Amino acid sequence: MAAVPRQRVLVLGGGFAGMFAAREMQRRFGNRADIELINEVNYFVFQPLLPEVAAGAISTRDAVSPLRQLLPGVKVRQARIFDIDQNRQVVTIFQGVQRRFTEVTYDHLVIALGQAEDLSRFPGLKAHALTIKSLSDAHRLRNHVIDKLEHADITAIPEVKRELLTFTVIGGGFSGVETAGEMRDLITKSLKYYPRIEPSEVRILLIEFADRILSELSPSLSGYAQQFFERQGIEVMLGTGVAEATGTQILTTGGEVIGTRTVVATIGNGPSELVRSMELPIAHGRIRTDRKMRVQGTANLWALGDAALIPLRVDPSERHHWAPPTAQFAVREARRLAQNIEAVIEGRNPADFTYKSKGTMASLGAHRGVAEVFGFRLSGRKAWLLWRLYYLSFVPGFTTKVRVATNWALDAILGRSIVQTAAQTGSATRYVRYRKGDRVFEAGNRADGFYIVIEGKVELTIPGIGEKENVTRTIGAKGHFGDRVLLGEGLRTGTVRALEDTVVLVVGAADFQRIVAALPVLEEYFGTYIASAYGTAKNLDLAAVGGTTVGRLS
Amino acid sequence: MAAVPRQRVLVLGGGFAGMFAAREMQRRFGNRADIELINEVNYFVFQPLLPEVAAGAISTRDAVSPLRQLLPGVKVRQARIFDIDQNRQVVTIFQGVQRRFTEVTYDHLVIALGQAEDLSRFPGLKAHALTIKSLSDAHRLRNHVIDKLEHADITAIPEVKRELLTFTVIGGGFSGVETAGEMRDLITKSLKYYPRIEPSEVRILLIEFADRILSELSPSLSGYAQQFFERQGIEVMLGTGVAEATGTQILTTGGEVIGTRTVVATIGNGPSELVRSMELPIAHGRIRTDRKMRVQGTANLWALGDAALIPLRVDPSERHHWAPPTAQFAVREARRLAQNIEAVIEGRNPADFTYKSKGTMASLGAHRGVAEVFGFRLSGRKAWLLWRLYYLSFVPGFTTKVRVATNWALDAILGRSIVQTAAQTGSATRYVRYRKGDRVFEAGNRADGFYIVIEGKVELTIPGIGEKENVTRTIGAKGHFGDRVLLGEGLRTGTVRALEDTVVLVVGAADFQRIVAALPVLEEYFGTYIASAYGTAKNLDLAAVGGTTVGRLS
Repeated sequence: MAAVPRQRVLVLGGGFAGMFAAREMQRRFGNRADIELINEVNYFVFQPLLPEVAAGAISTRDAVSPLRQLLPGVKVRQARIFDIDQNRQVVTIFQGVQRRFTEVTYDHLVIALGQAEDLSRFPGLKAHALTIKSLSDAHRLRNHVIDKLEHADITAIPEVKRELLTFTVIGGGFSGVETAGEMRDLITKSLKYYPRIEPSEVRILLIEFADRILSELSPSLSGYAQQFFERQGIEVMLGTGVAEATGTQILTTGGEVIGTRTVVATIGNGPSELVRSMELPIAHGRIRTDRKMRVQGTANLWALGDAALIPLRVDPSERHHWAPPTAQFAVREARRLAQNIEAVIEGRNPADFTYKSKGTMASLGAHRGVAEVFGFRLSGRKAWLLWRLYYLSFVPGFTTKVRVATNWALDAILGRSIVQTAAQTGSATRYVRYRKGDRVFEAGNRADGFYIVIEGKVELTIPGIGEKENVTRTIGAKGHFGDRVLLGEGLRTGTVRALEDTVVLVVGAADFQRIVAALPVLEEYFGTYIASAYGTAKNLDLAAVGGTTVGRLS
Repeated sequence: MAAVPRQRVLVLGGGFAGMFAAREMQRRFGNRADIELINEVNYFVFQPLLPEVAAGAISTRDAVSPLRQLLPGVKVRQARIFDIDQNRQVVTIFQGVQRRFTEVTYDHLVIALGQAEDLSRFPGLKAHALTIKSLSDAHRLRNHVIDKLEHADITAIPEVKRELLTFTVIGGGFSGVETAGEMRDLITKSLKYYPRIEPSEVRILLIEFADRILSELSPSLSGYAQQFFERQGIEVMLGTGVAEATGTQILTTGGEVIGTRTVVATIGNGPSELVRSMELPIAHGRIRTDRKMRVQGTANLWALGDAALIPLRVDPSERHHWAPPTAQFAVREARRLAQNIEAVIEGRNPADFTYKSKGTMASLGAHRGVAEVFGFRLSGRKAWLLWRLYYLSFVPGFTTKVRVATNWALDAILGRSIVQTAAQTGSATRYVRYRKGDRVFEAGNRADGFYIVIEGKVELTIPGIGEKENVTRTIGAKGHFGDRVLLGEGLRTGTVRALEDTVVLVVGAADFQRIVAALPVLEEYFGTYIASAYGTAKNLDLAAVGGTTVGRLS
């Protein structure tokens, strides 16, 4: 074998596919090549455990492992990828908070960037649904659920309480099923601390467009899972999609309106923004590779994991089979990919990826599961235990294995915690969707932000005081309301309703006050605007309100 | 004893003082009175453990306990306090995300709101220093430190690397000492994963205005702690205060400029905003009470813990002694307070609070500590072990005790994790301070936001291309720069330097694009502005950039 120049292999993404690919390559030929991995966070997240993190069944640090620890010898960079230049074979990145860009060259590029959410097809879902893809998502979901319980415990309005206690999961695949099951566990175990919530008031919905949940499993196990859920009080709605979502309700494809303040979307995956910008061959939202995992039409671009559409075989009836987007396959793909890149570097031929699934499993919460392993079907407690052991065997790193196992044991003995670990900040901007007739806010509410109408139309009513009559104004696209936050008043004086389906941009009160106080064009505009719109004699004394969000009542 | 009407006792604050007061009252007379507690978060945070949470020595959920679990029988509300009306005996609150306010009445009001940071006396410190008072603070500090290591590992600029690897703690009291010690542990244990950082490059500074650290302890133990720190590579600077801070340096009262990107402030406490607004007698930043913990001049207002200035005794030389703001005292105060309120309700006389400290302890990190207990002085490993056991005995709730102990054991066996759990978001607005001559950003940097000058003056230089000459503009208060983020360009084209000491408001790129695109007054202003300032022919196509922050290079 002739000596080859030292090659640079660059892996983008540190999930199952990317992490195991880098690990395997380092082991096989790390002494003869430079292996480098770039990921947005400095840890590997054990994604199948995220619903358990959200439910507090295991703690955050047991679901993640530092990439540097898992990948000795591999150069790990925590960075955002900015651009990929296939001609120059250069990836441009911004590392951490660094503001200067860095160029990283490669001979072989491995794309293991997974999939991104794509909720754009469902109006309102992007603005209002929670997801469960990252560690932050899991934390957000947990805090959100506990927040709803806290609120439901004290609200005096029955309709609001119903919305608060209705929890909706969209998508009946593995992720949706596990999230619904774990969410139910969290809520059930927490309820004893909320004396004003009856268990019968809680409603958990699992909405699936197909005619059964867990369609990757056999119909009998799907049936078991569904029956188990129904016994546990989780309502399964089949043949149902989501047509629209707001902050307080969803509209199903069947026309049903469901009042709910918690919507978890486990549907709508697509290629990441970066992958879309690379102009690679895409099919079914994934990068088309050949059976060797090389991106079609390229010599040194490889893709694997959820990001890649890897052909397995074509069956006699001309039906194409692709590698499914699961951790089990990703780990096997990583192994083959490492061998293939080694082969190419050494001038040999790469081989096809082949693997036959050993089985599938799902946890249903409450210590129950379903599994299909080596052709055997299991359900209930045994399947759940198998699922736990299987995933434990996958958890990378001895330290993390021991921690996860210990905490699972502690959880079984001690019960779990209902702590909400982070307050929602309420700063920055967010888009909010309202359906026709929805109340945006009413007089006496806390003034939490400034609102700009993006599309639709709202009606603002300010009640007259003494002899004055009510004032009513209609505000359409590009119009704004809630300007009184600038006066530092703590409570709304008017009521706003949506006259048609409406999207607004909400700017947090403190942020908005700071910006208006700093920018003369806005200071002038709002000074004039408030004087004329409200006829107030008050001066817009922004220095006095800058930075404070809470005024006093009296 | 005559029957008394059922009384309502309302406790504000769920720290050591408030939580133990509510617990003790519920135990003593919860059957005869309604005990209620209001806190901003739904958990009790074990504050002395926060430096260990920041260092990853124990996990988040082991440092917190749900208030509802700790306080059976007590009505717990998670709410923000909006107003206190002492005449009507009503507290107005906003519960969770609820926008409607709720009025809670009381017969006795217990103020246990602790102290708030007050960094306003130190220019730039509020904008740039981290604190270690809440759980979020601990998370932020941890992520910040790991972020600096990640960045230092890859930067090519020696000056930047020095700043990144200089970690500064201001204040040599318990909190500052423990934070410095734990931060050193975290950094030391993490360094093996950062091959491009030499241990000798790391600098940890502890800055104290007095002439020794841990002035609550005897001089010999202070001396031990300081020598131990110096052996560990923590530099202790005595007789030194902070005059000013920016994002990259601090200026000491001695005139020394220290380049550092991590400043933890454990100084500058003051009454919370709410307490300040109540017009109570305040001294030394705390509420003056009598020896019975009743607020001076009131009949049914009580204060304890860090928020209260409780007289203990006047010594023969007329020197006043006050209860120190420690957990040890807070718990004892809570017990006496419960007895006193019970007495008043039952028509008896309340008694003076008396307590003699049993000792003081501090952890120094690296399994060493200092302690003074019952007059004995201990240092080193024994003191550290005592400290751990003492705090473990304090940790409320059996579940949490077991978890904390287990994780301490696992930590000793397995080593700790360098995971960064949350990416910094970079949205919303923030104030940033620059000293004269500082570079705000330069051409080629990532365009991360829009800047408005609050005070001071900066100079913007746009390099000429081809035959064009450099363009230089001076921007003063109320002026702005960085407007190009609106064009969706990813990189800065100009360089900005501070001509004098300057404070700017930075609005995150994505937030700013959304607001400008939504608000016609800004759309018009910036359309005109950019055309005239840059003479660009480009249209301000906001629809195209709204929501994207990263463009492409080519």
